[in-house]
Parts: sequence; structure tokens; C-alpha cells
Amino acid sequence: MPTYKAPVDDVLFLLKDVFKVERYSNLPGFSDASPDVIEAILGEGAKVCEELLAPLNRVGDLDGCTRHDDGSVTTPQGFKEAYQAFAAGGWMGLAANPEYGGQGLPYTLAAAMNEFSSAANMAFSMYPGLTMGAAAALAVHGSDEQKKTYLPQMIAGTWTGTMNLTEPHCGTDLGLIKTKAAPQADGSYKISGTKIFISAGEHDMADNIIHLVLARIDGAPDGVKGISLFVVPKFLVDADGSLGARNGVTCGSIEHKMGIHGNSTCVLNYDGATGWLVGEANRGLNAMFVMMNEARLGVAIQGLAQSEVAYQNAAAYAKDRLQGRSISGVKSPELPADSILVHPDVRRNLMSIRAFNEAARALVLWTALKSDVAHRSEDKAALQAADDLLGLMTPVLKGVLTDGGFENAVKAQQVFGGHGYIAEWGMEQFVRDARIAMIYEGANGIQALDLVGRKLPRDGGRAIMAFFGELQAFAKEHEANADLQPYVKPLLAALGHLQQATMWFMQNGMAKPDNAGAGSHDYMHLLGLVALGYMWAQMAKVALEKKGAGEGDAARMDAKLITGRFFMERMLPETGAHLARISSGAETMMAMPADAF
Amino acid sequence: MPTYKAPVDDVLFLLKDVFKVERYSNLPGFSDASPDVIEAILGEGAKVCEELLAPLNRVGDLDGCTRHDDGSVTTPQGFKEAYQAFAAGGWMGLAANPEYGGQGLPYTLAAAMNEFSSAANMAFSMYPGLTMGAAAALAVHGSDEQKKTYLPQMIAGTWTGTMNLTEPHCGTDLGLIKTKAAPQADGSYKISGTKIFISAGEHDMADNIIHLVLARIDGAPDGVKGISLFVVPKFLVDADGSLGARNGVTCGSIEHKMGIHGNSTCVLNYDGATGWLVGEANRGLNAMFVMMNEARLGVAIQGLAQSEVAYQNAAAYAKDRLQGRSISGVKSPELPADSILVHPDVRRNLMSIRAFNEAARALVLWTALKSDVAHRSEDKAALQAADDLLGLMTPVLKGVLTDGGFENAVKAQQVFGGHGYIAEWGMEQFVRDARIAMIYEGANGIQALDLVGRKLPRDGGRAIMAFFGELQAFAKEHEANADLQPYVKPLLAALGHLQQATMWFMQNGMAKPDNAGAGSHDYMHLLGLVALGYMWAQMAKVALEKKGAGEGDAARMDAKLITGRFFMERMLPETGAHLARISSGAETMMAMPADAF
Repeated sequence: MPTYKAPVDDVLFLLKDVFKVERYSNLPGFSDASPDVIEAILGEGAKVCEELLAPLNRVGDLDGCTRHDDGSVTTPQGFKEAYQAFAAGGWMGLAANPEYGGQGLPYTLAAAMNEFSSAANMAFSMYPGLTMGAAAALAVHGSDEQKKTYLPQMIAGTWTGTMNLTEPHCGTDLGLIKTKAAPQADGSYKISGTKIFISAGEHDMADNIIHLVLARIDGAPDGVKGISLFVVPKFLVDADGSLGARNGVTCGSIEHKMGIHGNSTCVLNYDGATGWLVGEANRGLNAMFVMMNEARLGVAIQGLAQSEVAYQNAAAYAKDRLQGRSISGVKSPELPADSILVHPDVRRNLMSIRAFNEAARALVLWTALKSDVAHRSEDKAALQAADDLLGLMTPVLKGVLTDGGFENAVKAQQVFGGHGYIAEWGMEQFVRDARIAMIYEGANGIQALDLVGRKLPRDGGRAIMAFFGELQAFAKEHEANADLQPYVKPLLAALGHLQQATMWFMQNGMAKPDNAGAGSHDYMHLLGLVALGYMWAQMAKVALEKKGAGEGDAARMDAKLITGRFFMERMLPETGAHLARISSGAETMMAMPADAF
Repeated sequence: MPTYKAPVDDVLFLLKDVFKVERYSNLPGFSDASPDVIEAILGEGAKVCEELLAPLNRVGDLDGCTRHDDGSVTTPQGFKEAYQAFAAGGWMGLAANPEYGGQGLPYTLAAAMNEFSSAANMAFSMYPGLTMGAAAALAVHGSDEQKKTYLPQMIAGTWTGTMNLTEPHCGTDLGLIKTKAAPQADGSYKISGTKIFISAGEHDMADNIIHLVLARIDGAPDGVKGISLFVVPKFLVDADGSLGARNGVTCGSIEHKMGIHGNSTCVLNYDGATGWLVGEANRGLNAMFVMMNEARLGVAIQGLAQSEVAYQNAAAYAKDRLQGRSISGVKSPELPADSILVHPDVRRNLMSIRAFNEAARALVLWTALKSDVAHRSEDKAALQAADDLLGLMTPVLKGVLTDGGFENAVKAQQVFGGHGYIAEWGMEQFVRDARIAMIYEGANGIQALDLVGRKLPRDGGRAIMAFFGELQAFAKEHEANADLQPYVKPLLAALGHLQQATMWFMQNGMAKPDNAGAGSHDYMHLLGLVALGYMWAQMAKVALEKKGAGEGDAARMDAKLITGRFFMERMLPETGAHLARISSGAETMMAMPADAF
């Protein structure tokens, strides 16, 4: 069975040494998060994930969730108890508003903890994850009464949350939503319709489930401008906060999925269920976006998390498995064969996963810090700059970290040879679980379109220009640092490709939007590679400094420098191919008549 | 539920128009295979695959195989009847020796039919596929008596075959095999040991199962030089050919796998089972290689097959699913939304799968023709040239077509959005099934090593030099054909990258073999891209000729030309990144100490 060890040291290296989290101590919540406190919290969180959640990962896959004839759903053995322990430990409210019982710590810390829990047990971690996403939408758009009614319970984890967007005929195109909301005399609405793919839609782990539901108020305009957001609790909540009648929302079935079997993905039938409007009528999409943006970062983290746990197990297997001899000469003559780690192609797989993971972790925390600044800073300029980059990077992280996370799970599985295909080893579960992250919360093609169609041109390209400027300033600042040039020079070359691609879109994408659409996937990955490369350059700088100063663990810093060089030599060169594809435009792919497909 | 339509027209285009199969009519079996006969056979075979095998694909996934307490195994509902109909139709012996009841038709035709049956039902098609692989090994290395005893029944399909290599502690490194063979007075051997991952190892579809087993004769030398091949029937065969006593080989368990649930992957326990030596003692690996080379082409075809069936279903879904509007303006104002085929990124997925499939199909048939020449020609020079290319291309096809087949199944699944993750749509089964092809019959890392370490340097690089020469001659021959240059020019650029990479290995791989190992994966894919590009250049040439002559289906030829251009613009540019990675060498990836992983 696979094992998992949370990479606490690596997170601490990033927060303390690379991003110097102490610089943020003027922000609310950061003053409580001194490096020592962070270390203590992450250490405790790691233990919960390693000892409580990881052992349930395969159980969840095997047991799955069971719907009973009365519509109730049982989660896999051990999930309920683990969830209650997790909630009681205060892990759900780590970064939530103290006014409603949260701990108010940085979101950055919650993001780090999210990686650990998703790696330990992705299907499990979706229950708290969705709850906090729903709570975030209520916190921004809910009325005071709604916040008072729902947030304390959701933050404490006694109630969970869901988001209900998809219907059988519409996922991406929410303008097609048919679920109806009929206004009632008391100000509530009767919600009727069918929602599908509702993660954590029904289960036995918490006392109540708070559904956030997109629906169309009778007479509302067609399309996305007629969509409103509603809060629909499974059990109605009485004035004193106690649970009242069962509401008219039931689980019609549980989907049979490729993976994340431990999460109950439900068809939910709304049959005149009582709901209340959240925010303004017909502005539901706007309200839902708060939830979706946070959820997208959460899904990006899932990609990294599956990649990390898959890496750890593949590395352990490679060290352990004896098979064949090194082509450069026998390495372990005392054994019947060398470990497969002597084979360059096995190392290629492992190194490429690792070079991705360490940079992806940096990028997650860098972006999470932007999110904290964007949500907590009182410095308007800093806030705007952070918000720009957060907006720009959210689709990139979602798309690149989930595509990469899946690919890496596949690579790690490959290290196991035939055993990777056998369920008991657990590697194929990582592959199946990681696959969903490329699809939900906006399929990755939608992320690419969001990036190229909205985030890139917004405010005259201010965000991407700031990103270019930051990288160039970094290169300039360190141009005298000869040891750093093997990291900075490839980064500048890749940045050049990104700038050319951006220019190409400006020249060719405005007049012919299909040119932008046709290059969007490659642009997302090109930007992702440059951003990961920038993370490597920063990590290499710090590793060189620490080595020079004789600080810290020299072997770990050497490993960082080797891994960063691997990224520069073997992964970053892909930017040229991305640029070539982008520059080839849309003509050929749009030339094929529909009936020829 | 997914559907499947065998691409008979495309195979006929390749065999008749591109490769001009009539030129081979001097070879045994080809004179019986006139274009009309080929068309009739493929049409009939297509029907069997579409109507008999495809409807059982999901059943096989859901039912799986069941081992009973007595060690017997039941295959999924309908498999037994389908197998018997398939065998009775003569499909197993299509290309087999007429002396033993085969039809003696070209292997090329069997390869085309293999694509159809693997696409329709991969788990099913492994039963006949393994049988024919085992029969091929017996045909080359078996004694006359062994051939007479086993081949007619295997070719007729009344008995099936298996190959038994893997043991719990050894897969790639067969020198570690522990299964023992104790010589008996009557010339037979008693075989004892445990084999794992034995596809079609036990089942209820045929009267007997003929196991080919690698084992070590008592006192044999250590390592691969002490491995012998044995034939071990499930039921002993009496002198008159009737079935006698049950032999001492039993199914200990069925593996729980990620996919191909319809095939029974067994742990087989040999407990003093009676077996007979095939070929020479201690030369078992040699004998097994006959089987493995044919099996590797068969697995390459599985990669293509899963990619093709996944494409067909994704294309149909994309035409049908209405979601969003074209970014270049509404295309179907009469509908609530445009079909998702209007979105460039959806087309990017579909076109890249298709551009791969059509070239991969060409490469399979081109290589299969080499195999026919290598096995049937009496022209020594032609035979050797064909055998060189067959040897060179076998690992490339296995590695590139299965890596690509899996990636394409994932891309096709992505077109379905959330529905792609749901079992009922069938797309996730293609992904799970396709995954094994990258692993078995030599994991793809082993294929890359076989290519770079053995096939490339063999005979002073004669095979790769001949390949270079053929491409250059093609380019030269058509340099005046202006319409063809958009295909030839990118191909020559890619060929340049391949030549540089080959040169780099010559200069850096001999002295430091790790440099060759570190670049082997990229080299395999680089060579694969150039070979696929060469197929596109040939197909484009013929499509232009047919268009110019007003022959054939102009719309189909236009689609070919567009798809080929897509390949050149969007897929071939990857060769530069492969070259960059190869040239970066092994130093960085070998620098990491083992305990740092």
C-alpha cells in the first residue's frame, strides 16, 4: 500500500527562505503566523494527513459511496470518524474569518495544508474543500443573517457545503441552466430541477449539507444574465439555529466514476426545495465566481498533490526494486541485480516529476501569498498588483498543475512496470483520481480560454506586463551572479518565447479570435513553464546563498540545485515547441468541415 | 455506450493507393490477396468487430473474469460464444501457415484486422492475439511433432496460447527467473514455480490452453544463458490428439487491474507440471523473442486501436453536444448553443488524435509489409533491407503508438468534459485499457533502450542509415512538386533533428552509455515523429495525385491534406525539443545521489 510523508521541510524552505513570509507580518493573520507557529501547525497537520487520512485512501477507492433506497448515502468505512476528527481539529477553519469561528490564519497556510490532505486522500479532502468554497461565497455575497446562520457551522465542519452548477445538458455554458426558482410570499423561493456531478452532494458525515444552487427565477432573462444563486439547506434551519424539516432536495443516484470513489458525486433532484437568494437576483454567476476562483486554486493543488504522493511511492519503489544492471557498469555486485534507480530512463521519469512538483509547490504558495495580499492588504497599489497576478495565474495553475499532475501520476505508475497496473499497489488509483482535476471546476480548455480571452487582455495586458517586468528585474538584479546564470539564462530564453507568443496574439488574435483559441492551450502551458522556471530561479538563488553561507542542510540544497538544472535542461526547452504551435494559427484546424470529423 | 466503425476505407487507401500492395504479388500469400479480396475480407472482418465484439466491450469491463474455488475461470458474459464464432470464422488463422490450417494471407492483412478487433474490444482480442503469438514461436522453434500437435488446434482457435515470462521478482530482467524444470526419463520436464501477469492464463473459452513457459533446467548456468522455453498444455494431449489428464498448472488468483478486465490476468502456479523443451536448452530467450517481436507490433496496434475508437466517439460527441457559442460569431443561431466543434481547442484535441491515428495506421501497415517481405521474400537483399527496418521500427512502434494511444484516449475523454469521467460513457474505459499497452511486452522505457542500445548501432547503423536514405530520396524525387513542399520541408527539418541526435549519440553515447540511456525516450519519440511525418508526406503525395486526376472521393482527399498539414504545423515541431533534451545528456540526472530521491 502506498505511503505518504507531507513535504513540511520544503514548504518551510519556500515560506521562510524563498518568499520570506515575515515580510507580510503587517497583514491580518500573518502576525499570528511566525515561522515557528507555521512550523508547528504544518507539523501537526502533516501528522493528521499521514496517519489519519492516508490510510483511508485505498479504503475509499474500494468501498466507494453507497446510496440507499431512502436516498441516504453512506461514505466509505472510516470516513465519517476521520472527518469529525479533522473538523474538530480546527483544520477546516484555518484561514476562515475569526468572527465566525475561523482561525484567521493566512490562506497561504491553508493552501499548504490543502496539498497535504489532497495528497493523503483526495476524495476525502473534497468534503472540507467544497465546504470552505461554499463558505467563501456566502462570506462575500450572503446577507448578515445567512452568514450568521451558516458560516459558524460550516467553518466548524458540523455542516458541509456543495456547489450546484451542472445540469445534464449544460456544464460550461451556464446560460443554458433550466433549474427554476419560484418566488414565495415569505421571500424564499421554491427550487425545482436536476443537478448532476454534485461532489459531496449527499453523505453521512455531517449534520446538515448547505447547497449553493444556480437557478433561474421565473421570468428572468435568458442566458447567463438570468441566473441567480440560492442557498438550499438539506435540513431547514430554525430561528434558534436548530435543524428543522427535511428540505425537498434528494440524491437520485451516485455517479459511477473513473476515480475519487470516496467522494459521493450525486445527481440531486430539487423538487420545490426551499431556498433563499444569495446576493442580487440575476447576478448568481458573479457570486459563484468567488467560489470558483478559490476552488480552481484548490484543484490546482490537487494536481500537485497527486503528483507528489505518486512521486514519493515511485522513488521508494525504484530504490527498492532490483532489476537489470547499470549500463555504465554493475553498481551493486553483492546483489542479484542493481536497483532500477541506476537506469537513466527511470531517473528521467522521477526527476521530471520532482522538478515539476517543487516548482509547482513554490508557484502555489507564491500565488496564495498574492491571494492573501489581494484580500487583506490596505495598500491599494500592492493589492491591485497582487490581484492582477492572482487573476492571471489562477487559470494557469488550474490547467498546468492538473495536466502535469496527471501526467506525473502516469509517469510514476510507469516506474512500477506491470505492478503499476495492479490495484493493490495503489499507483493506478492516483492516476484515476488525478484525472478528474483536469476536468472539473472548468475543464482545462476553458481555463486556457479564460486566460487568453479574459485575463491576458484585461486592463490592457497590465497583469502579464507586470509579470514580464518582475522576471526581467530579477534577471537584471542577479546578472553578476555567475552561479545563477545556468538558471537565469534559460529562463530569459523561455521568457522571450512567451513574449513572442503574447505579441503574436496581439497581432493575430484580436482580428481573428480563433487564432487565440487555437493557441490557448499552448499559451497556458508556455506561461506555466515560464512561471515554474521563475520559481526555480528563485529557489536556486536561495540554495546558492545558503550553501555559500554554510547554512542549512547542504545535501538538500545540492538536490535543489540539481533538480533545478534538470528543469532548465529538459523541461523548459518545450517553450519553443509551444511558440511554434501558437504561431501556426487556427487556419488548418478550422479548415476541416464539421462532417469530415 | 460507445460505438465503433472500422476504418476500412482508410486501410484500403493505404494498401492500394499509398503502398501499392499489388507490387508484392510475387510473395507467397499476396497473389491470393488482390485488392478486391482484401476489400471483401476487411469488410467482413469489420462487421464481426463492429457487431460481435464491440457490444461486449463494456460488458467485459463490468463483469471481469471470475475465478472459482476449483481454480477455473469464467470469462464475461458473451465472451465464450463470441470467441467461438470468431475462431470459426477463420479470423485467427488469417496469416497462419496453410500447412496447419491457416489461410496463409499476408501478415499485413492480419495487422489491419488486429486494429479493428482491438479497437472493438481490446480485452477480448488478447485471447486470439496471444494464441497467435505462441503459435508463431512454436512454428519457428518447435519440433515437427510439437507443431503437428499444437498448431492446427491453435490456428483453428479450439485451443488458445499464453506466454509465461514474469515472476514476482522479475519482469524485465529475465535472468532472475526461478521457475525450475526437472528433466524426466521420458524426455519431458517437470516444471515448478510461480508466474504472474499471465494474460488469458485460465478461462472457459477453449478446450485447452497451451502455455509457453520460461524456466531454468536443473544445473543450468545463471542468468539469461540458463533460461529454456517449454510448452506446457493445460490438458496433456494423447498420441491421437485427444485430451488426456489435467496438467499441474493452476490459476492461483486473478489480478485486480486498472483495466482490460475482460482478460483474465492470472497468477499461474506450476506444481511439477509436465512440459517439453521448445528449441534448444538454455536458448529459451531466443525462442521467446520471436513471440515478443510479433507481440510488440500487436501491442503497438492496440495503442492505435484505442486511439481510433476514442477519436470516433469524441468526434461524434463534439458534433452533437451544444455548449457555448463560437468566439468568431454564432454558428447555429437556430439552436440554443453551437456544437462544441466550433471551439478551436476542441478541434485541436480531435485533429491531433486524428493526425496521429492516420499516420500511425500507415506506419503499422508499412512495417507489416516489411515483416511480410522479411519472412516471405526470396530476394536476399530485399529481405535483409526489410528485416533491418522491421527490427528498427518494432520498438518505435511499440513505444510511440502506445504512449500516443494512451494520450489520445485521455484527450478524447477530455472532449466529453465531466461526462468523460463517468463510466457509462465508456471513454474512461478506453483510457484504462490503453494504459497497459505502455507497460506490457516490455515497458516503453525498455523499448527505448532496445532501440538506442541494440537496434540503432547494429551492423554499424545500417538500418537507420537506410531510413535516412529513403526519406532523402523521397524528398529529392518530389522536389519539383510545389504542392507537396508544405509536407516535405517540415519533414526534412525534422529529419535534420533526428540526424543530429543520432550523431550526438555516436559522439557521446559510446564512451558514456548513460548519455544514450538518458536520451533514449526522446530519441524513440523523435524517430517516431519523423516516421509518422514520412507517412504523411507519402499520403499527401497520393492525395494530391488523386485530386489532380479527379479520382476518388475529393472530400476525403481534402481531409487528408488538411490533417497532414496539421501534423506538420502542430506535431512535428516537437522534434526540436526532443533534440534539446537528448543533447543535454545524462550528467544532471545521474548527479542526484540515490538517497536524495
